[in-house]
Amino acid sequence: MITPAADATGFEAFAQAFRRHAAGVAVITALTPDGRPVGFTATSLASLAAVPPMASFNMARTASSWPAIEHTEHVAIHMLGEEGFAVAQIMAGDNALRFDGDHWAPGPHGLPILKTTTAWMVGTIVARTPVAESAMIAVRIDEGALGVPDEPLLYHERSFRALGAEL
Amino acid sequence: MITPAADATGFEAFAQAFRRHAAGVAVITALTPDGRPVGFTATSLASLAAVPPMASFNMARTASSWPAIEHTEHVAIHMLGEEGFAVAQIMAGDNALRFDGDHWAPGPHGLPILKTTTAWMVGTIVARTPVAESAMIAVRIDEGALGVPDEPLLYHERSFRALGAEL
Repeated sequence: MITPAADATGFEAFAQAFRRHAAGVAVITALTPDGRPVGFTATSLASLAAVPPMASFNMARTASSWPAIEHTEHVAIHMLGEEGFAVAQIMAGDNALRFDGDHWAPGPHGLPILKTTTAWMVGTIVARTPVAESAMIAVRIDEGALGVPDEPLLYHERSFRALGAEL
Repeated sequence: MITPAADATGFEAFAQAFRRHAAGVAVITALTPDGRPVGFTATSLASLAAVPPMASFNMARTASSWPAIEHTEHVAIHMLGEEGFAVAQIMAGDNALRFDGDHWAPGPHGLPILKTTTAWMVGTIVARTPVAESAMIAVRIDEGALGVPDEPLLYHERSFRALGAEL
């Protein structure tokens, strides 16, 4: 039997592995304490529990949206489809321009709800775990709605991708 | 302007949104305190930080592997490709049979390293955040290796899927 041996350490091991991973694309939005909308594209959205319904996402605590996420109670989580490509790019672009335009409207709690998404959920933050310069955030899902019917948008190797065939 | 309104609450809002999400497929393995291998298929693997390199995953604290994850220091994280389909099914199947066969071998720290994966990483658990009956786990990546060259395996609506075209 051959003993599996590492060929990389630390960041290289991390980077080479994640280059072989693909992820669904979501957008998280919130309000700052003074009511300004913030948001960002996330590939870390995951189901955390079904009962009670909970989701998680990760973010850098150096990100422009962190002060809002650190202090707010509510967030909106949006699932993106292929048509959501443009929204994903806006919400990953210049943070001063992310809410310039009519691609969103205020929903529950005044949270920015993005159009051209396949579904959105509004929830209450129940845990924020700081880990080095990042944080893991847990959200209890309170309500939501379906949006445009579309296939999920994926991200792999710095490119947006469609979902492929069933295996 | 139309105010976005919810059409579902709680679990329904959560379930209908995640039915429109797709995720990459990973397998987490570990050892129990008495050295028995455990593992499970996860769709929650995410990048958490690059410096220092960290990844996160979620799991139910009712899962058969939780007692091992709760007490161990080290885990192995495997990225799955299309060829890893069979491994994903084994590691999501009967937990008494997940290590019956030659689809794995002991690697660093004696951790089970699965064959037919596109990459694996071994790391140190740095945070375990219990949330209701689940937990968010953060892992600092220490070392790893590439495996078979293959396109990422995805999971959507209870089916395994290939990655599709670049958009």
